[in-house]
Amino acid sequence: MNNHELLKPLIEPNITKLILVVLDGLGGLPVDGVSELEKADAPNLSLLANGSACGLQVPVAYGITPGSGPGHLGIFGYNPFEHEIGRGVLEALGLGIHLTENDIAIRCNYATTVHEDTKIIVKDRRAGRIPTDQSKKITGMLQEKIKRIEDAQVILLPGMEHRFALVLRFKNALKKGADLIEDTDPQKEGLEPITPSPSGKQAKHVADIALQFVDKAAKLLRDQDKANYILLRGFSSVPKIPKFNDVYGVKALAIATYPMYLGVAKLLGMDTIKPEGGIVQEVQALKDNYGKYDFFYVHIKKTDSNGEDGNFDGKCRVIEEFDANLPGILSLNPDVLVVTGDHSTPALIKGHSWHPVPVLLKSRYVFGKTSAFFTERECLKGELGIFHATDILPLMLAHGMRLKKFGA
Amino acid sequence: MNNHELLKPLIEPNITKLILVVLDGLGGLPVDGVSELEKADAPNLSLLANGSACGLQVPVAYGITPGSGPGHLGIFGYNPFEHEIGRGVLEALGLGIHLTENDIAIRCNYATTVHEDTKIIVKDRRAGRIPTDQSKKITGMLQEKIKRIEDAQVILLPGMEHRFALVLRFKNALKKGADLIEDTDPQKEGLEPITPSPSGKQAKHVADIALQFVDKAAKLLRDQDKANYILLRGFSSVPKIPKFNDVYGVKALAIATYPMYLGVAKLLGMDTIKPEGGIVQEVQALKDNYGKYDFFYVHIKKTDSNGEDGNFDGKCRVIEEFDANLPGILSLNPDVLVVTGDHSTPALIKGHSWHPVPVLLKSRYVFGKTSAFFTERECLKGELGIFHATDILPLMLAHGMRLKKFGA
Repeated sequence: MNNHELLKPLIEPNITKLILVVLDGLGGLPVDGVSELEKADAPNLSLLANGSACGLQVPVAYGITPGSGPGHLGIFGYNPFEHEIGRGVLEALGLGIHLTENDIAIRCNYATTVHEDTKIIVKDRRAGRIPTDQSKKITGMLQEKIKRIEDAQVILLPGMEHRFALVLRFKNALKKGADLIEDTDPQKEGLEPITPSPSGKQAKHVADIALQFVDKAAKLLRDQDKANYILLRGFSSVPKIPKFNDVYGVKALAIATYPMYLGVAKLLGMDTIKPEGGIVQEVQALKDNYGKYDFFYVHIKKTDSNGEDGNFDGKCRVIEEFDANLPGILSLNPDVLVVTGDHSTPALIKGHSWHPVPVLLKSRYVFGKTSAFFTERECLKGELGIFHATDILPLMLAHGMRLKKFGA
Repeated sequence: MNNHELLKPLIEPNITKLILVVLDGLGGLPVDGVSELEKADAPNLSLLANGSACGLQVPVAYGITPGSGPGHLGIFGYNPFEHEIGRGVLEALGLGIHLTENDIAIRCNYATTVHEDTKIIVKDRRAGRIPTDQSKKITGMLQEKIKRIEDAQVILLPGMEHRFALVLRFKNALKKGADLIEDTDPQKEGLEPITPSPSGKQAKHVADIALQFVDKAAKLLRDQDKANYILLRGFSSVPKIPKFNDVYGVKALAIATYPMYLGVAKLLGMDTIKPEGGIVQEVQALKDNYGKYDFFYVHIKKTDSNGEDGNFDGKCRVIEEFDANLPGILSLNPDVLVVTGDHSTPALIKGHSWHPVPVLLKSRYVFGKTSAFFTERECLKGELGIFHATDILPLMLAHGMRLKKFGA
C-alpha cells in the first residue's frame, strides 16, 4: 500500500501548524574530518536538535542520487517511482511559467550546425555556450516572430546561456502519451539532429509542430554566428498527481526564492510566495502568512548552490545564516517543525549525492536528548533512525495530531 | 521496482576499482559475553572500520536464515525471492562444469546400504565419508561404464569425500518444471531410499533416467565395501538470471578456493580464479589480476566452516588470518572496499543463522569515526544502519561514482 492510500482514511482536521523547512542539498561529507554541518557554527540548530526527534532520511533508495524532482517528491510524501516530473516540465517550471494539462514543455539548446550536401550536421550542441544576454535577445526575437503553429500557442522562456524552454499550449487537455517523443539532440557532435518518430497519434501531432518550430526558427537564425539551430530534449507534460492539500488535509503555502521549487509546489496545488531576497525575507513571509495557512514549506536554496560549486565554507555560511534566522521561526511556536534537505550536496562531490539527509522534528511528542548537534553523525543517534523520505509527511501529520487510529 | 530495473538506466562507466570481500558466515554471537569478531585480535580491521562507513546487512529478511544460494544472491544485489539457484546446480557449477539449459544437475552422495528381504536399507548416508581419492576412482569407473541413458548424456563430476554431482544433458532445452523431482535421500539412516513421483511429463522422464542411473551404478558398486549405493538430492536446472557485468556495468572477477562460490559467480557470468591454498594465495591472485578487472569478489570460506563446527576459537583464528592479510588488499588502494559476510554462522549455533551481518565500506565519500572495531555491536553505531543485503551493490556503485542521478 502506498502512503497516500494508507493516510487518506486516517486524516482528521486540526488547527495545528506544521512547518517543513527544506535546506536544499543539506547533507554533506567530511573535509579534513568534519562535514559542512559539523563545521558550521549553529548554536540554535544544536539546541533545537537536542530537544527534537532526530534521524536521517533516504531520499530515494540506498546508493541512489536523486534529481531535484524525485528529491522534492520524496519529502512531500510522493513515491518517486510512482510519480515523475519530466525534464521539460521541471525546466519550464524553473523559468517561472504556470503549466496546465494543455501544455507540452521542452528543454531547448541553441546549437551550431553546418550544411553538408543536403544534411544538417551538429558542430556544437551548445552554440559555444553563448552569453545569457545574447541568448535572451535571440529568444525574444523568436517569440516575436513565432507566436502560434497550427492549433498550438508557442511560448518561449529564456534561460541561462544556450538554454531555454519551449511550451506548446494546446486548446484542450492532452492525453496520456502525448509527450512520448524522442529528443532531437543527437548527444554527439558531427551527427545530424534526430527526427523523432513517436507512435501515438497525438504525440505525432505534437512532434510535427515542434519540428515546424525548429524549421521556422532555423530560418530566422540563419545569419547567427553560433546559435543557428535548436535541439529539443525532455518532451513532457504535466503529470497527473494528487493534490497535496487533498491528500494530507492541510492548507499549504510554499515559500521559495527559486522558481523551480515554487513550480513543483504549484504542480501539487500549493499556494506560493516568492519573496525578493533571501532567508530573512522568507522567514518574514512565513510570519506574514502564518495566520492564513496551516502547512508551510520553506525552501532555502543556497546550501545546494554552494555544495554544487564545491564551496565548503560558503555552504557553512548559509547554514549559519539559517541558524541566525531560526529564532524567528521558533517564535511562531509551531506544533511541528521539521528541518531537513531534499538530498545531500557535499562540497566534496560538487553535486547531488546518495547520502541520507539529516532531519530533526520538533514537537511536544518526542523524546529528544539523543543528538547534541544537528549533524549527520549526531542525527544517526536519534530516535527516528534511518528512514524513507516519504515517511516525513506521515510523521509530521501524526505529531500534529492529524491522523486517526489505523484499524479498530 | 526492483534494484536492477532501477539501476540499469543509471549505470555509467568509470575506471574506479571495487572490491567485495565476503567472509563466509562472518556474523557470530556472544559466548562468555563476546562474539567471534569481538574476541578476535584484528587491529587492521579495527582501524579500517574506524575510517569506513559501517552497518549491518540483513541477508534475506528479519528472522530468516539464508542458505548459501540466497546469501550470495543477496550480497550480489539479486532479490533472493525472485531468483533461485537449485542445490544440484550449485554443486555442479562448483565442480567446474559449464551448465546449459539442456541440463539437469543433481547432488549425489555415495551411501552404504544393506539388503533386508526385498528392501534396500540405508545404513550410512555418507558411506563413512570415504576418502576423496577413493571416491574419485569409483566415480571415474562409473563414468567409464555409464555414458548415456536413453536420450540423456550422463556426466559425472567427482567431488570431495562421499559427494559428487550428476548432470543429465538432454538434446534440447528443458521446460520449466522439469526439475521438480523429490530427493531420493531419506535423510535418516535405517530407511529405504525414496522413489520420487513427479507430476510433470518431462520431470517423470528425467526422474526415470536418474533412477536407471542409480540402478546401473548400484550393480557396478555391488562389491564396494562402503560406497555401494547412490542417493540423489537437489534436482535442478539452470535459472534464467541477469548477468552481473550487464546489470552493473562492470568487469568482474571472482576469487575463491571453494568450488560452489565460483559456481555461483560463473552462473552470473563472472570470470573466476581458484587459487591453490588459502587467504594468502587469494590476496595474491587479487593483486595479480588487479589490472584486468574493475570488480573483484573475494570469498573466504573458513569462517563459515569453523562456525558450522562450533569452533569459536577456530573462527577467531580465521578472522585474525584475514586481518593479517588486509594490508595486502589495502595496498591496492581500491576506490571502494566492502568487507562483509553472506550470512552469520555463530559457533554457538553451529550453523547458518538469521542475524544481520557486519559490513564496512571504505571510500573517500563516507563519514566514518562511528565504530571503533569491526564487530556486530560497533557496526550498529555506523552510518549505514541496518539495511538489506541487496543494497550493498547500489552502495558500492554509488561510492565508485558509477551511477547517474535519478530523475531531473
